[in-house]
Amino acid sequence: MQIAILLHPGLTALDAVGPAELLQRMPGNETVFVAREAGPVRNDQDNLSLVAGRSLAEVTRPDVVLVPGGPDVRATADDPVVQDWLRAVDRTTTWTTSVCTGSLVLGAAGLLTGRRATTHWLARDRLAGYGAEPTGERVVFDGKYVTAAGVSSGIDMALHLLGRLGGDDMARIVQLMTEYDPQPPYDAGSPDKAPAHLVDFCRTELATHVDPAG
Amino acid sequence: MQIAILLHPGLTALDAVGPAELLQRMPGNETVFVAREAGPVRNDQDNLSLVAGRSLAEVTRPDVVLVPGGPDVRATADDPVVQDWLRAVDRTTTWTTSVCTGSLVLGAAGLLTGRRATTHWLARDRLAGYGAEPTGERVVFDGKYVTAAGVSSGIDMALHLLGRLGGDDMARIVQLMTEYDPQPPYDAGSPDKAPAHLVDFCRTELATHVDPAG
Repeated sequence: MQIAILLHPGLTALDAVGPAELLQRMPGNETVFVAREAGPVRNDQDNLSLVAGRSLAEVTRPDVVLVPGGPDVRATADDPVVQDWLRAVDRTTTWTTSVCTGSLVLGAAGLLTGRRATTHWLARDRLAGYGAEPTGERVVFDGKYVTAAGVSSGIDMALHLLGRLGGDDMARIVQLMTEYDPQPPYDAGSPDKAPAHLVDFCRTELATHVDPAG
Repeated sequence: MQIAILLHPGLTALDAVGPAELLQRMPGNETVFVAREAGPVRNDQDNLSLVAGRSLAEVTRPDVVLVPGGPDVRATADDPVVQDWLRAVDRTTTWTTSVCTGSLVLGAAGLLTGRRATTHWLARDRLAGYGAEPTGERVVFDGKYVTAAGVSSGIDMALHLLGRLGGDDMARIVQLMTEYDPQPPYDAGSPDKAPAHLVDFCRTELATHVDPAG
């Protein structure tokens, strides 16, 4: 089994590394980091590069593909090479997945039309613009298309996928070995839970960090 | 304010990228990835390199230092250049921190002697070997020394640190923007919660993935 994590310029590193860290622990799988060309890909904060080991041309039949997001995915969503690759590999994937605004890239490829899906909470309108039906759930399964909400949600998505791919106990072993027993000291991780004035602040001051075109 | 994330060969990528993703969102800080030499550093799975932007020599007075772990940190714990750097920067840090077996590296530098601290649940005995007092807590503060348990716990540690560095509302905004509203589909993230037969499996079959010397 091959799991392909797409790296694209300006990605949010945790969108990729979070789920990859869990998925790659499944016995018998090869997890590869793939980009338009092999080599370093810069993150959204411009302080870290992740090195893709493979070019798109080298990864033609992954079983799972995962598209991370970033604050500005327009260039990736508009890149015909990336879009053609996504549509091509999607024909044979078991699971086609995204984290955060990675779903906008899948949407631009036409893969989420008419499907229930999710994205970063500040980008739901934009996801709807691609013909998807945005939900407020953290992880959304619609057929073989699996989308996760913002940034950290990819870790939860990975556990769901591990359960489907390798069974509940294998997923639990990975959860235990990565000590994923979350204990956040605040309860502000979704717009339904955070104080209203902070949600408003994010909407008015930080929305362009997620959707520059919005 | 400068936050320095130490990259070392064989690190667990999520140990570094998880907390960095949250910490770097604090306004007014510079988060840098630092290694013995600037350039790519290979992860424990041998499928991803993270590129350090700075050498140790270039980062002399970080306010926060964070040491990620990995399944085999012996080479880093024994590296006199790394150890000298950690002891030198520790003299002026506000917070000296670690994730997972990163605490073994701090312990080897003599920075946790007599302090309450934590690590990956399979490495607690080894942490005690450095004179620390291991606890089963997920995030442990002892003075300016902050240690987190295995892998994913660095994200919780980052939120605690953000609260201390920038206030509760700033930490909540970062939690909201990274949508850290964990909803794992299993409850097996600690040895106290996972089914006993899976804990036993990890102890007997996977312990060497955390502590090759054990």
